[in-house]
Amino acid sequence: MFGARCLLRALRSCSSAPCPRHRPAARVSVRGALGVQSANGERVKVQGWIRSIRSQKEVLFLHVNDGSSLESLQVVADSSFDSRELAFGSSVEVQGQLVKSPSKKQNVELKAEKIEVVGNCDAKAFPVKYKERHPLEYLRQYPHLRCRTNVLGSVLRVRSEATAAIHSFFKDSGFVHIHTPVITSNDCEGAGELFQVEPSSKIKVPEENFFNIPVFLTVSGQLHLEVMSGAFTQVFTFGPTFRAENSQSRRHLAEFYMVEAEISFLESLQDLMQVMESLFKTTAMTVLSNCPKDVELCHKFIAPGQKDRLEHMLKNNFLVISYTEAVEILKQASQNFTFTPEWGADLHTEHEKYLVKHCGDIPVFVINYPLALKPFYMRDNEDGPQHTVAAVDLLVPGVGELFGGSLREERYHFLEQRLARLGLTEAYQW
Amino acid sequence: MFGARCLLRALRSCSSAPCPRHRPAARVSVRGALGVQSANGERVKVQGWIRSIRSQKEVLFLHVNDGSSLESLQVVADSSFDSRELAFGSSVEVQGQLVKSPSKKQNVELKAEKIEVVGNCDAKAFPVKYKERHPLEYLRQYPHLRCRTNVLGSVLRVRSEATAAIHSFFKDSGFVHIHTPVITSNDCEGAGELFQVEPSSKIKVPEENFFNIPVFLTVSGQLHLEVMSGAFTQVFTFGPTFRAENSQSRRHLAEFYMVEAEISFLESLQDLMQVMESLFKTTAMTVLSNCPKDVELCHKFIAPGQKDRLEHMLKNNFLVISYTEAVEILKQASQNFTFTPEWGADLHTEHEKYLVKHCGDIPVFVINYPLALKPFYMRDNEDGPQHTVAAVDLLVPGVGELFGGSLREERYHFLEQRLARLGLTEAYQW
Repeated sequence: MFGARCLLRALRSCSSAPCPRHRPAARVSVRGALGVQSANGERVKVQGWIRSIRSQKEVLFLHVNDGSSLESLQVVADSSFDSRELAFGSSVEVQGQLVKSPSKKQNVELKAEKIEVVGNCDAKAFPVKYKERHPLEYLRQYPHLRCRTNVLGSVLRVRSEATAAIHSFFKDSGFVHIHTPVITSNDCEGAGELFQVEPSSKIKVPEENFFNIPVFLTVSGQLHLEVMSGAFTQVFTFGPTFRAENSQSRRHLAEFYMVEAEISFLESLQDLMQVMESLFKTTAMTVLSNCPKDVELCHKFIAPGQKDRLEHMLKNNFLVISYTEAVEILKQASQNFTFTPEWGADLHTEHEKYLVKHCGDIPVFVINYPLALKPFYMRDNEDGPQHTVAAVDLLVPGVGELFGGSLREERYHFLEQRLARLGLTEAYQW
Repeated sequence: MFGARCLLRALRSCSSAPCPRHRPAARVSVRGALGVQSANGERVKVQGWIRSIRSQKEVLFLHVNDGSSLESLQVVADSSFDSRELAFGSSVEVQGQLVKSPSKKQNVELKAEKIEVVGNCDAKAFPVKYKERHPLEYLRQYPHLRCRTNVLGSVLRVRSEATAAIHSFFKDSGFVHIHTPVITSNDCEGAGELFQVEPSSKIKVPEENFFNIPVFLTVSGQLHLEVMSGAFTQVFTFGPTFRAENSQSRRHLAEFYMVEAEISFLESLQDLMQVMESLFKTTAMTVLSNCPKDVELCHKFIAPGQKDRLEHMLKNNFLVISYTEAVEILKQASQNFTFTPEWGADLHTEHEKYLVKHCGDIPVFVINYPLALKPFYMRDNEDGPQHTVAAVDLLVPGVGELFGGSLREERYHFLEQRLARLGLTEAYQW
């Protein structure tokens, strides 16, 4: 942390010489300040936004938040600091001394020596109100201000931690990161509806297409990664992908980020599932340990009980069942499904939910799907009447399908035959 | 490294029990194998592509590369292993013992016990030839195979390391990572020509626009980040950006990755320049220390002498001059420029190159540019007849402008006035 490092530097220089009262205070983040174990009057400067203000006869309590953590820092000031400008939402810079707090609510508080209002906020006109828990639908109207609420702040910090954890996981495992192209002429075997891209001012290139051929926004970097896996045994990408599905459901987004990886020389789904399980567990554990308060908030107000369920998942080894077993389990279920489970049909969300519950709320890998359900590049298991491919989906409680993957078909004549059967030979001649 | 970790595990289990000759060999990467300090007959499995093959009377030498490093691993095999399938470009899996190499060229070699050809390669038809240094223009024709060459492999590894280093730098400095949108309706104040986005199958949504308004590919996430910096004091993004400039020059790409950061409460360009200098130095040093051989190759064949120049940059503190000083230096230059240097005119590449040379090939920050040259959101210095803004560009030897930044104008009436003067009030009413 930047703030914490500044503080250390300040402490170091304080210890080597008597600390004059007016030496410049070291800038610390709220997170850095709250993390100080035994505050002892260190002079610091904190910058952020006022989250609450309570004025008593002789003292003024402010809570200042700077986005570095869910918790705010309590600032205690003489009532002479009180002013109309010190309002909910205003941005301030506070200088003072970090001291042990007499309250049990926090370890540390900041005894203000100087408070400067950097930006005013008209609390009446401000759409985010003090102490109110606004519905997410209401906050959607204020994309530029909603990140000042607890819940959106937490979500963004968790996303940031998860992103960093994913990059670290692959780097530590020896994967090479590849930026696969976003603008592409390839549609990755109909993974979804495409967005087309054109220069907006067509005046400069009147008669021809900018790229000579029609181009789209990527729906998956998989085929580009597969090419790279002919030179690097382990590659991954983590970039934006796009689907032009005209839907306002919770499960469809026009633009989202996706992690994709390819491993060369992989011979068993077992090895692939090991990477998936490690990625899930490493990322989840990093988030839980680096932003426990944010996770707690989400689990309290957004997904009650989810934290216990997550810890339950992390403690247990994930399970593995075959698609055929999964269909048997569903057929024997007492529950009535909207879609009758049947060998050869896709698993629907209701089926996925049942399977996860059946497995004791532990994530479960479903392997070996019917060949007819899966794209041409998945490896044929050559397993007789019930013809399957070496595909795997990871089903997770509360989410459904989280990861999907497969062994890739490396036998040229198998690929040729399947492309021909699907009428894709022309499209994939390259 | 995944490979290295496997190796450690294998060594550990070997030491606790006598190691039978046929226990399964641990999979290691070439990088992992080459990194073993004192090889002592550990049984390992290496997978990769044959980079060279030399057959002697009784011994066969193979060099196997798996993309984890520029260097290949030397495999020494009995000549009985020789076969027509063992050819340049073929993929192989080799099991054997890691031993100290008698040659001075490498520390370690692999004594093969088993060699399996996983995929054949017809060396005659293969466009990448053994021991040939292909021009980059030739390799452009083979985007799916060029990553098997030394130079493209090195470039991709360096890019991967630099990407990881950038993420680590910001995380360690307490920045929150934000995925700013790629599809956007905002053109970030004319930073470049835009690409427009439309669903490719318009059948489903015949009469209306998919997003209700025209949307484009982002040219910069800056304005989205600025919004976030109203809740988090330090944010960054590192994503794809797009410019529809119809140009085949070395300096223009339709799609490229850009690092952007915003710091709230920042009051001086000095603090901003400190972050820029640290980012540059941390990233460059990480790349130099994690892939020295790749860097050496690039510097030998692509940019001769660049490594010394880079080390020279890392050793020195970057310099700072004002735009006004820069123009004075250019005016006094003995060199004739195509564009005559003049206060109020943009600095051209020839000027940037001269300035960097003038500064002893040390990167130099040029600050305080004329207001008329810069966008509306940069902070007015209010400095009289020569009216400037608090903008900064970092000029780097061999590159030119690498970073740009500014203090943002936070005074509302200044913003209003400048938007009005530029006729942008309507476009930015939000």
